[in-house]
Amino acid sequence: MWGGRFADGPSAIMREINASIPFDKALWRQDIAGSKAHVAMLAQQGIVTAEDARAISDGLDRVAAEYEADGVPEDWDLEDIHMTTESRLAELIGPVAGRLHTARSRNDQVATDFRLWVRDAIDQMDAGLLGLQQALVTRAGENAASIMPGFTHLQTAQPVTLGHHLMAYYEMARRDRNRLADARARLNQCPLGSAALAGTGFPIDRQATSDALGFDRPTANSLDAVSDRDFALDFLMAAAQCSLHLSRLAEEMIIWVSQPYGFVRMPDALSTGSSIMPQKKNPDAAELVRGHSGRIVGCATALMVTMKGLPLAYSKDMQDDKPPVFEAAGLLALSIAAMTGMVAECTFNTDRMRQAAELGYATATDLADWLVREADIPFREAHHITGAAVKLAESKGVALDALSLEELKAIDARIDQRVFAALSVDASVASRVSYGGTAPEQVKARIAEARAALGME
Amino acid sequence: MWGGRFADGPSAIMREINASIPFDKALWRQDIAGSKAHVAMLAQQGIVTAEDARAISDGLDRVAAEYEADGVPEDWDLEDIHMTTESRLAELIGPVAGRLHTARSRNDQVATDFRLWVRDAIDQMDAGLLGLQQALVTRAGENAASIMPGFTHLQTAQPVTLGHHLMAYYEMARRDRNRLADARARLNQCPLGSAALAGTGFPIDRQATSDALGFDRPTANSLDAVSDRDFALDFLMAAAQCSLHLSRLAEEMIIWVSQPYGFVRMPDALSTGSSIMPQKKNPDAAELVRGHSGRIVGCATALMVTMKGLPLAYSKDMQDDKPPVFEAAGLLALSIAAMTGMVAECTFNTDRMRQAAELGYATATDLADWLVREADIPFREAHHITGAAVKLAESKGVALDALSLEELKAIDARIDQRVFAALSVDASVASRVSYGGTAPEQVKARIAEARAALGME
Amino acid sequence: MWGGRFADGPSAIMREINASIPFDKALWRQDIAGSKAHVAMLAQQGIVTAEDARAISDGLDRVAAEYEADGVPEDWDLEDIHMTTESRLAELIGPVAGRLHTARSRNDQVATDFRLWVRDAIDQMDAGLLGLQQALVTRAGENAASIMPGFTHLQTAQPVTLGHHLMAYYEMARRDRNRLADARARLNQCPLGSAALAGTGFPIDRQATSDALGFDRPTANSLDAVSDRDFALDFLMAAAQCSLHLSRLAEEMIIWVSQPYGFVRMPDALSTGSSIMPQKKNPDAAELVRGHSGRIVGCATALMVTMKGLPLAYSKDMQDDKPPVFEAAGLLALSIAAMTGMVAECTFNTDRMRQAAELGYATATDLADWLVREADIPFREAHHITGAAVKLAESKGVALDALSLEELKAIDARIDQRVFAALSVDASVASRVSYGGTAPEQVKARIAEARAALGME
Amino acid sequence: MWGGRFADGPSAIMREINASIPFDKALWRQDIAGSKAHVAMLAQQGIVTAEDARAISDGLDRVAAEYEADGVPEDWDLEDIHMTTESRLAELIGPVAGRLHTARSRNDQVATDFRLWVRDAIDQMDAGLLGLQQALVTRAGENAASIMPGFTHLQTAQPVTLGHHLMAYYEMARRDRNRLADARARLNQCPLGSAALAGTGFPIDRQATSDALGFDRPTANSLDAVSDRDFALDFLMAAAQCSLHLSRLAEEMIIWVSQPYGFVRMPDALSTGSSIMPQKKNPDAAELVRGHSGRIVGCATALMVTMKGLPLAYSKDMQDDKPPVFEAAGLLALSIAAMTGMVAECTFNTDRMRQAAELGYATATDLADWLVREADIPFREAHHITGAAVKLAESKGVALDALSLEELKAIDARIDQRVFAALSVDASVASRVSYGGTAPEQVKARIAEARAALGME
Repeated sequence: MWGGRFADGPSAIMREINASIPFDKALWRQDIAGSKAHVAMLAQQGIVTAEDARAISDGLDRVAAEYEADGVPEDWDLEDIHMTTESRLAELIGPVAGRLHTARSRNDQVATDFRLWVRDAIDQMDAGLLGLQQALVTRAGENAASIMPGFTHLQTAQPVTLGHHLMAYYEMARRDRNRLADARARLNQCPLGSAALAGTGFPIDRQATSDALGFDRPTANSLDAVSDRDFALDFLMAAAQCSLHLSRLAEEMIIWVSQPYGFVRMPDALSTGSSIMPQKKNPDAAELVRGHSGRIVGCATALMVTMKGLPLAYSKDMQDDKPPVFEAAGLLALSIAAMTGMVAECTFNTDRMRQAAELGYATATDLADWLVREADIPFREAHHITGAAVKLAESKGVALDALSLEELKAIDARIDQRVFAALSVDASVASRVSYGGTAPEQVKARIAEARAALGME
Repeated sequence: MWGGRFADGPSAIMREINASIPFDKALWRQDIAGSKAHVAMLAQQGIVTAEDARAISDGLDRVAAEYEADGVPEDWDLEDIHMTTESRLAELIGPVAGRLHTARSRNDQVATDFRLWVRDAIDQMDAGLLGLQQALVTRAGENAASIMPGFTHLQTAQPVTLGHHLMAYYEMARRDRNRLADARARLNQCPLGSAALAGTGFPIDRQATSDALGFDRPTANSLDAVSDRDFALDFLMAAAQCSLHLSRLAEEMIIWVSQPYGFVRMPDALSTGSSIMPQKKNPDAAELVRGHSGRIVGCATALMVTMKGLPLAYSKDMQDDKPPVFEAAGLLALSIAAMTGMVAECTFNTDRMRQAAELGYATATDLADWLVREADIPFREAHHITGAAVKLAESKGVALDALSLEELKAIDARIDQRVFAALSVDASVASRVSYGGTAPEQVKARIAEARAALGME
Repeated sequence: MWGGRFADGPSAIMREINASIPFDKALWRQDIAGSKAHVAMLAQQGIVTAEDARAISDGLDRVAAEYEADGVPEDWDLEDIHMTTESRLAELIGPVAGRLHTARSRNDQVATDFRLWVRDAIDQMDAGLLGLQQALVTRAGENAASIMPGFTHLQTAQPVTLGHHLMAYYEMARRDRNRLADARARLNQCPLGSAALAGTGFPIDRQATSDALGFDRPTANSLDAVSDRDFALDFLMAAAQCSLHLSRLAEEMIIWVSQPYGFVRMPDALSTGSSIMPQKKNPDAAELVRGHSGRIVGCATALMVTMKGLPLAYSKDMQDDKPPVFEAAGLLALSIAAMTGMVAECTFNTDRMRQAAELGYATATDLADWLVREADIPFREAHHITGAAVKLAESKGVALDALSLEELKAIDARIDQRVFAALSVDASVASRVSYGGTAPEQVKARIAEARAALGME
Repeated sequence: MWGGRFADGPSAIMREINASIPFDKALWRQDIAGSKAHVAMLAQQGIVTAEDARAISDGLDRVAAEYEADGVPEDWDLEDIHMTTESRLAELIGPVAGRLHTARSRNDQVATDFRLWVRDAIDQMDAGLLGLQQALVTRAGENAASIMPGFTHLQTAQPVTLGHHLMAYYEMARRDRNRLADARARLNQCPLGSAALAGTGFPIDRQATSDALGFDRPTANSLDAVSDRDFALDFLMAAAQCSLHLSRLAEEMIIWVSQPYGFVRMPDALSTGSSIMPQKKNPDAAELVRGHSGRIVGCATALMVTMKGLPLAYSKDMQDDKPPVFEAAGLLALSIAAMTGMVAECTFNTDRMRQAAELGYATATDLADWLVREADIPFREAHHITGAAVKLAESKGVALDALSLEELKAIDARIDQRVFAALSVDASVASRVSYGGTAPEQVKARIAEARAALGME
């Protein structure tokens, strides 16, 4: 019945399903920091003696040094990082180690450690996004006036500038960072001292441990504090949205490097060649970034499902909070770095982009706008006139601005010579000076603001 | 080949798959408001005459009055709410209606309308959560000192108060409202004037429309503005987290009303009886709240998947943004209302709760804490002593505080008479005075703060 | 407190949250059929008289006729389709209607109705997929030898035929239909007679109702029968996989119609033009098909989350089983129809495809294979030789087969004249005769098999 | 810019994001098997010499022996298990190793390996479920007549037997195994020989490799064969459904072991005690099983999102297919084993269950049924009479069968002495003899069938 690796029956199964040390050892730094803050407070409040506290604190430093040097030992019988550390501490300093656990429990300890870890992950993700923004802004600055086709439905719609296009992703990253900042602020309350679920009768000073660990304040309800994983969900959701943004840019990169587009050439380091087809540059990094968005969305879904319907307070289901967070954080850090590399080091073929923009009657809207603006024709009517002009140009196989004034006047007599100034891609782009529009002056103004905000001046 | 309802072939299919009017008619109020703000600005900027603007604005009021009275007509050939309204406007006021669409496109129009709708949904959800918080705080105030078993793993762990337990949900709702406020602040930028994707050459005043519609500022990048659905995802994710919180309370309610628990009696209005078993009160409302969390998580997943890998700018895929948002908003509004009703009007059987807390040696931790505190025994050693005491009590079939002093001293000589003060559930609860702990004085302090924050004084 | 539409308090909330009639009225045909089968069996077993049974059965026919003519009335106080029908039946035939519910309960009734509905949905989806397959096979047949670039990583890799490419989707649809057939077989057991949860003491004949309703057999465990929604999940998962397949073809269509590719022209009926840019054909239908995959995946997720952790037997959460199934079925039916239309009626620009295939040294692999096959060179070495040849051709700006024999021999002396036969796209394609390969003879053989399987001969 | 672990810039990022060897080394057995089958076929077809084939095959055996002894080396520069093995093979046997890759590519190689792995995982999962079914059937057999409350809405509804309840899970596992069998059959086609995407010109024998690897037949379309991950999704979806079933049983176990229920006692090996509260048995294993369902649903979601919208043929995104499959397979194997342990070794407190069933007027439906059956009263009317009887009993604080005949007759004169035989929980259960009902004779018949099907006789 208990064949295979569970030949020893339920105890072997339990040992394996129950052990979180294979993944929660990632928390060791946070666990040591939390314990040191806790024991310092215990001493300050006279709950343990100064001497015992020093022994414990020094012992924790020794454990940390061992972990740093040799890694965290993975002994399933010790279950988790908390028992692993406490057990090693007891070996090093003897029974006094047992005083460390006064006035806390594993429930508030793990909640504290995990919050600290997620806070660090937020900070690293924010730093990564800053780098990505800087790369975007730099390349946008180089291309603030480079013409490319602006697409809707992946159909050429109106000419835009490459700088404008790149700055759209700057805005997405700005929201991502804003979302992370919100998540960080909401997370930054300290559960330590909530004990198992009810708080404690020891005269602890929760504000002190909260301060020592860089939290804004202690959590206000001990039952909630040990049951709450909102901070992990906030992180996963911010990660999911960020990865979706990256998936969009990745998709564009993949399309843009495909031969019929040829808008961009990937940096060698971030694509794979083929020993047999040297012209081929597979955009592997972009594809992995796009693919990773699936796994990160999966991580967010996982924790939502796990948390559904759990009664208060701590339930062991919540041990499944960490793997999705760790996985998403790792995948996203790589994705941001890879995308930063692609943005920073790809080669834009701006000639090809401009050429594509000039095809496809991308300035038809400009003709319609000219009719409204200069000839005071209602917009919907102007559209019909424009349609006729494009149809004529198409039938002649020429661009809009290659039609003669006579031909245009035959379509609508209100058209005059000035219209031609509106029909080139440069004129089109230059005209879109509304705030946030694609006119180079607008794009440069946004870039300047971004550079200031990013400290790039 | 085109059997069934698509007998007319692709055109019939397209008519059905393309029409968003069946759902986006929900946007009509926002669409009218956006158009009125737009035309007022056009007039102010001299892009349309004051007279035309007045005709359009009055016409929009007439359309709105018709919608209010008769509902929005659902004509698939007009595709969406925007064309439906513009078409009706043209019928009412003639060709001048065509001037309304100057310097905007459906892309920025729909982005604006949808943001306004989501902003309203956020405000309504916030108001609903305020009501839930008030109900929680009120019931918590009534039960700040009512003893119940505190559970971990759904096992009796330590006594807590019912007020403390309810206030845990107050904290969750507080985070939910905080998350909504963050989402609202991030959303509150106006896309109007981004036009199709590139901005416009008309001398529009984007700040003016932004102000008129209650936004903080216009969006900074026109490509991003028509491609961005972060605000919808932020809402869905806040909704998902809120629904998960509600699912936890719902689960507890369902368990608590089951006969072996009997901790609570649902209000008649929110349960279904059985004509045949009058004692049966099925907690249907709680189950539906729990079930709805699945659908709301599904809505969040849906939009994440839809947005994955979309190139800029607008793609028609994004028409699938609205159904999940509308569905989630509706389900969550109902869920919050139902849960508020349950909290406000259920009957707690506090005798039964207290009785359950007194079983199960829930004060064993208090004995261990007493040993640490009063006899200066390391925590881990104190645990072993306590284990021996509980084992003895269990073997005698009595509660911990029914052991004699002699029996306790036989286990550890350092125990003295004062210990008995620590072993009742009341003493246990009263002792947990750490900040955020379950002691009635702590619970009452938190309730007082909450009442002040909610304006309940 | 109970502001807005819930001013009447909990009873108004309950009325709205509890009513399933707004969506479960879709089950009316199945509900009538189930009731008729049930009452016929009751009569046959002597549980009701033949006369009563006839009255009930005739009454049900009258109710059905009313529904057919006027739609199902949506009275929230009657909660669901079952009560709506029973109530109308009682109005029509009096108290004898009460006998219909003998030996069944709403729990087995709804499980039966919903299975019948899902079975019908499976059959419709299967018919839709058959149509799609026929369209694919037809177009593949027309293009069995049309050359196009075969992509990996969206990079031109090796030439393939368009027919071969289309037949890849035929295979996906084949798996979809196979998956549906499996789901149908697993679903096809009749829950009727399981009663509320425990079965019944009435001498019913479950085999009879099972037979009458086209099921294979009655379900074997009454508790399971009323708690099981596997059949709905099976359907949703089959729908999700199918929609993912369609999203891939939609993505290709969207890329292929974009101007730089220009491989295909969408049928007018399934794209939207622009009054202003007549050359623009937005592939709206393809985008909606791609977008719908998000919502369908969301539906599958929704029901998984809802079912998680539900204790036996029926819980009201399970009322949330129907909306995701109905939504997914509707979206998928439209998606399949739209994709069938696109496949059947799009115009392939095979010249453009061929031209793209001829670029990009797509036959480099053929050179390597020739070296292995004809010159007995290990594959990895052959790769290096080929790389050198492509590099030379690239530096000269010519195609591989435009290199001279001398140039090739200078790279590796073992190359001889015969190599040129391997270097055209036609030769490349023609050579790949392995089973399932892209050689026209292989493609035609697969098409012939498919036509036979689909009854197209 | 490239701070932290990516100080070397894009090449360091690429090395890390691109390497799949950390996870795909799990495929080594399948990779060796696939290569051996391939080279044997190459020799048989005369594509490589018998001597070369023998050298390669022996070399592969040596590599396999090394992996078995020392594990698979994880060298990121070799990217994946395929290059790792080929590279080691070349070290061992020299350049002839290069001939192994003739007529295949990494695309068909990985598709083949992964299918083989998933097929093995299906077989292991099936074996695990067989064990779970045997445990369920064994415990059901012991408790075929043990009375417990049957719940709907977690409210006592009607008495059932524990054996009947356990057999509901047997049915779920039966569907799980059936679903796996379907997935296995659909998976069991061999992609090997599809090469990169187009097939090959070498005269390979795909049927031979298919046969050698235990597949039913080669895949029919080479483009599809390297692009298809349906088999992975089928596995994940089967895993998700199975884990949802387990989550339901886990939920019941958790509720049943909570003190107010006390229906069951977990085996020591599968719960955690508390050194301080020896009576406490936290159902950790059950909670982890319930929690794991979240992660497994997350895995299914992940791959669905990753596959959405991928153009043909192979894209690197598909490298993200393996982590979710590996994770889900591992979590589910543990979950099944843990649940099997709980079912096999828990202690049911059948006295407590029976006692709970006797409370709550669980036989009220039996009274109503009796009225219909024996007094020929329409069901809805019988319900009202029963309601009155229960109300009377409730007001007197007695069970239904403690009412006197006079009292019952006062409610409805058609009631007679025989009714009492219907009102005990034993009588109730015994009466439900409909096929699949809870009567012990029915339960025993189903168990006997199950034992036969499982080979337990």
